[in-house]
Amino acid sequence: MTTRSPLAPAAFPALPDIAGVTRRVARARYKEWDRCDLTYVELAPDTAVAGVFTRNICCSSEVELGREQVKHGAARALIVNAGNSNAFTGYRGREAVEQIRTQVAEHLGCKDDEVFVSSTGVIGVPLPKDKARAGIAAALTADPCSWEAAAETIGTTDTFAKGAAASAVVGGRTVHVAGIVKGSGMIAPDMATMLGYIFTDAAVAPALLQEMLSEATGGTFNCITVDSDTSTSDTVLLFATGQAGNTRLESWDDAGADALHAAIRQVALDLAQQVVRDGEGASKFIEVQVTGATGDESAKRVALSIANSPLVKTAVAGEDANWGRVVMAVGKAGEPADRDRLAIRFGDHWVAKDGLPVEGYDEAPVAAHLKGQAVRIGADLGLGEGRATVWTCDLTHGYISINADYRS
Amino acid sequence: MTTRSPLAPAAFPALPDIAGVTRRVARARYKEWDRCDLTYVELAPDTAVAGVFTRNICCSSEVELGREQVKHGAARALIVNAGNSNAFTGYRGREAVEQIRTQVAEHLGCKDDEVFVSSTGVIGVPLPKDKARAGIAAALTADPCSWEAAAETIGTTDTFAKGAAASAVVGGRTVHVAGIVKGSGMIAPDMATMLGYIFTDAAVAPALLQEMLSEATGGTFNCITVDSDTSTSDTVLLFATGQAGNTRLESWDDAGADALHAAIRQVALDLAQQVVRDGEGASKFIEVQVTGATGDESAKRVALSIANSPLVKTAVAGEDANWGRVVMAVGKAGEPADRDRLAIRFGDHWVAKDGLPVEGYDEAPVAAHLKGQAVRIGADLGLGEGRATVWTCDLTHGYISINADYRS
Repeated sequence: MTTRSPLAPAAFPALPDIAGVTRRVARARYKEWDRCDLTYVELAPDTAVAGVFTRNICCSSEVELGREQVKHGAARALIVNAGNSNAFTGYRGREAVEQIRTQVAEHLGCKDDEVFVSSTGVIGVPLPKDKARAGIAAALTADPCSWEAAAETIGTTDTFAKGAAASAVVGGRTVHVAGIVKGSGMIAPDMATMLGYIFTDAAVAPALLQEMLSEATGGTFNCITVDSDTSTSDTVLLFATGQAGNTRLESWDDAGADALHAAIRQVALDLAQQVVRDGEGASKFIEVQVTGATGDESAKRVALSIANSPLVKTAVAGEDANWGRVVMAVGKAGEPADRDRLAIRFGDHWVAKDGLPVEGYDEAPVAAHLKGQAVRIGADLGLGEGRATVWTCDLTHGYISINADYRS
Repeated sequence: MTTRSPLAPAAFPALPDIAGVTRRVARARYKEWDRCDLTYVELAPDTAVAGVFTRNICCSSEVELGREQVKHGAARALIVNAGNSNAFTGYRGREAVEQIRTQVAEHLGCKDDEVFVSSTGVIGVPLPKDKARAGIAAALTADPCSWEAAAETIGTTDTFAKGAAASAVVGGRTVHVAGIVKGSGMIAPDMATMLGYIFTDAAVAPALLQEMLSEATGGTFNCITVDSDTSTSDTVLLFATGQAGNTRLESWDDAGADALHAAIRQVALDLAQQVVRDGEGASKFIEVQVTGATGDESAKRVALSIANSPLVKTAVAGEDANWGRVVMAVGKAGEPADRDRLAIRFGDHWVAKDGLPVEGYDEAPVAAHLKGQAVRIGADLGLGEGRATVWTCDLTHGYISINADYRS
């Protein structure tokens, strides 16, 4: 990993063990590098699974197969390949995924479609079957490893390993939720260039688990953006091993369902924000909050228009309270807005109201806010009750260096 | 002006005089700078006018008034203020525009709404009325100036003055078309951060003139993008003085209408491409051509998705034939596409076909193409007959430097 992002947390968090989840890593050498790049997570029998996937039409075979597999709701294993996304590789890429599924399924004595595969890295090069076969063989017999080792192994351009945890009480029992994620570029809603995996020991019916995941991603993974680009491989999977001993949750009405959902959402939000904190070249973490829109969806589109604007993002990089660019980004969103009701703030300091700069506002606290690492931009449209919050990072020389020098 | 863009033409072109068009410039000192920043173009009586304006909802008073004025179809003068966009300045900004219109109208003995005003520069600071009044007074009595002087005076962050010309034969008479434009950032379709003015001595009915302009902008000014940001002030006006002596064109069926339209479109295309060539930080001029889409509008959306992708633009800056990022950008556009029919080329060299890299393609000519200043990216979707071409530039350290250091 390259220089750790200045926005990274101080250390990888302490994640609880999740009963029924065993992690192992190995070297498949998908690229010429001296690090583990293949992650194998073994899941106890009867583990339920849910998933959300990229909406990019040019998706990988892994995504195509994953979408089908989650419909069955059962998982025994997860394999993550780092260094090669296997996207845009046609039938040869698909064969590699099928080979991996069969190899792991034979080892575990399960069905092929209980083995989930993700790959991340360069597009257009079929995943080499020989390297995959040897790597899987090594991983299947490796010693179990820590969450942090797994989080490091799924990473590619990430500058720090990302994990998060939460707990909830379900039916009188404490259940745990732990997750890891990778991603730092090609990040935009409908799944960032991002692979995220969340595990819980709670017992949950697959249909409810899918609803919980879909709900949780709406305001978390789908509310972050680094560069407005959407990967062909993005995936978030949620596994529930059922080892906590609670009576299986079947519906939202069951006691503890809301608490578990809140814990899953908390982990998803933490992981999503860490992806932004590792945004390529990021020097500032930006929260964009839009209020007063005609509806929540409208608010989200306006917020993303602000968060994706290169001119807003470079202004924040330059610590410039350039609210005119925020006005521009609100206006170009194509959503209902009224120039003469619009108000803009940085932090808690309103700099424009009712379509005019706030007369004689104190620039000192605004400038101080922009000098910090966490910048909050607010836009109140003054039209209704719609609101949304999204997260992004600034656009810096670091982003250009990383992406203009990267070689395919 | 700062360092001239490496993509700039060698020199400002020779533009013909347009009978009935007189240019003058003056110093209003809207900013602390030692240059002319106020342009006054006097137009002969009976000049017809057409206009297209930004779709940004938070538009300036100039745009609001201009939209109303073009409905009357008559123009006697154009005023362009550089250094202050007068956008998001409420009633005080509007008063400044009305003052300018009245001052010029009294001088010419025309109606206020025959005086068109544009402003470009910082948002949120009302145009100072005293500076405008003194500047207008100076401009009204200044000596006529060249096209190049006018093109320089309307510019702000532009690194070179932009002009273009063409001619057509209408009813046995040669008519001329000349235009100037400013813009280099906050550039995206539905008008870039861009002010463009095109003049012809042809006689054309205002309704037909409007149709000609709207048609011409669809494939030119609305097919360029620098940073996907849309300004609050963008304007293109087309003036027809009627001094060439042709029988006034009333409809598309009149002899010469198509020829004049072609000349107008040629000037619009030339000017639009010059804006891209002056894109902030640009080192490469990029043409994106999409074919095989289900329709032309769909093709345009896919082309803009490619042209606006930071990852595609940084890859071109790095001279990297990273077609995987092009695939990603096609897939995220939300338009009909089929991964396994998609083909990608750089220049005339196909690097991927039918959803797979072209086996053993020769990388040398592809690399050579990317080293040039003009890069062509092609994507064939293999679905239908829809096609579109858009133009953009690469995303470089220069863009970050310009926009993170700019102070509002």
